[in-house]
Amino acid sequence: MSALTLVQEQKCFGGRQVRFKHASAVLSCDMQFSVFLPPQAAEGKVPALYWLSGLTCSDENFATKAGAQRVAAELGIALIIPDTSPRGEAVADDAAYDLGQGAGFYVNATQVPWATHYRMYDYILTELPTLLEAQLPLSDKRAISGHSMGGHGALVLALRNPARFTSVSAFAPIANPVNCPWGQKAFTAYLGEDRTRWEEFDASLLLARRGSPLPLLVDQGDADNFLAEQLKPQTLYTAGMQASANLLLRMQPGYDHSYYFIASFIEEHLRFHAGYLQD
Amino acid sequence: MSALTLVQEQKCFGGRQVRFKHASAVLSCDMQFSVFLPPQAAEGKVPALYWLSGLTCSDENFATKAGAQRVAAELGIALIIPDTSPRGEAVADDAAYDLGQGAGFYVNATQVPWATHYRMYDYILTELPTLLEAQLPLSDKRAISGHSMGGHGALVLALRNPARFTSVSAFAPIANPVNCPWGQKAFTAYLGEDRTRWEEFDASLLLARRGSPLPLLVDQGDADNFLAEQLKPQTLYTAGMQASANLLLRMQPGYDHSYYFIASFIEEHLRFHAGYLQD
Repeated sequence: MSALTLVQEQKCFGGRQVRFKHASAVLSCDMQFSVFLPPQAAEGKVPALYWLSGLTCSDENFATKAGAQRVAAELGIALIIPDTSPRGEAVADDAAYDLGQGAGFYVNATQVPWATHYRMYDYILTELPTLLEAQLPLSDKRAISGHSMGGHGALVLALRNPARFTSVSAFAPIANPVNCPWGQKAFTAYLGEDRTRWEEFDASLLLARRGSPLPLLVDQGDADNFLAEQLKPQTLYTAGMQASANLLLRMQPGYDHSYYFIASFIEEHLRFHAGYLQD
Repeated sequence: MSALTLVQEQKCFGGRQVRFKHASAVLSCDMQFSVFLPPQAAEGKVPALYWLSGLTCSDENFATKAGAQRVAAELGIALIIPDTSPRGEAVADDAAYDLGQGAGFYVNATQVPWATHYRMYDYILTELPTLLEAQLPLSDKRAISGHSMGGHGALVLALRNPARFTSVSAFAPIANPVNCPWGQKAFTAYLGEDRTRWEEFDASLLLARRGSPLPLLVDQGDADNFLAEQLKPQTLYTAGMQASANLLLRMQPGYDHSYYFIASFIEEHLRFHAGYLQD
């Protein structure tokens, strides 16, 4: 197991906002990630919310802009904030913002040149929790959430691995990537032309086929510029109805795709997850 | 009076996070600033907290990182977030981060080449409130706060103009600029070699000499790298004691100079100001 190197530590709401670096075996590169450890972590193990960020983000956006630490400190929940792709000069990249570094889409790539490093699905599902639960005061209770591309990632990871998580939520997720430009571009590059391989990474298709034993909470702003073309929450909602899933989709009037939207509702997501993490 | 041009508007905690551009007569350049209007501003006039940011900041840092909108929305207080200096290619600048653009120090400069544009004291004290109270749903109740260089600015503006504000607070202010490297460098450039002209822009000297009819709240992290050399809160504290001022200085153990520190305590500052703004 790789060692964690502490890059930065700052006190925040009585807890510790920390940034670590490590050599990822799954991604074959050095990675950074951020963690908020609430004050309760000084006394014993705490449960964790994994937060998956959107296109172009690093592990810093959510840590600095969402205002989540206040409620996490109150509730005794750690926040685990990974980067959004493998990183480094040796890692394949693309000039576009929606492919390559900053745009890993939380899949395991099978295509050249991406397959060497782009295995964010396995990284988030297995490598990171194993590492963190061995080296930080974390229990094995995990919830997962994310925004946009990260909302897609959170839903896919939870729907495919319901035993690994207590609950899942998302802000403006890419809810049906096989039917939107962002998803089609990324899945073609990372997974190839065979669309049947895409279906294992589409939250709406997974929910319709498998249902979900986990509760799902999704918030979507109705002033979000990406709503109709890229996000398609109504497809997820229809799938949830078909599968009799415990899905609450809330359309939030006037909100856009930004961190001002996330900040406005992150408290409700944390309290939603806390109810399941602390069972 | 110059017109306000709306640059950006985003819904946040039920209110409006907006960014405006205008032609500043005092600064002789185009300026941007950010405003949070709480939900209550849709029904009538609300009081305002002016927030002055620190070195290198623009009007965006506090808006995106402090998490202040949640409590401002609850309390019905507008947040006014100016830039930290005049801006533009025609405006004098310096390669250093602590002089020129991003480092206006909230003074009225008298020296070449700064005197043409660097009049942030007058801009914050008069031009901006006059403009905003005429064009936005703001009452004439104003509180003021800020961080580091902006904490210095907030204290100086309030101590020199107590009738203009209800209350003042600061996070890690440059509390005695005539006796620290940041202040000495900036005041020499902007105000010249005559140190008697510096004294009107030093919070500790102003407080010792004039006292304060306004209540003052100051938070300072004891893990702040700039504490001993640049900030000197103990000098402000001594001045407050001499003047029998209503000053509460709180040393916060373990906190540094970052927005994680500000985010951790901004709620208490907003509630402090609310008690005076709503009298």
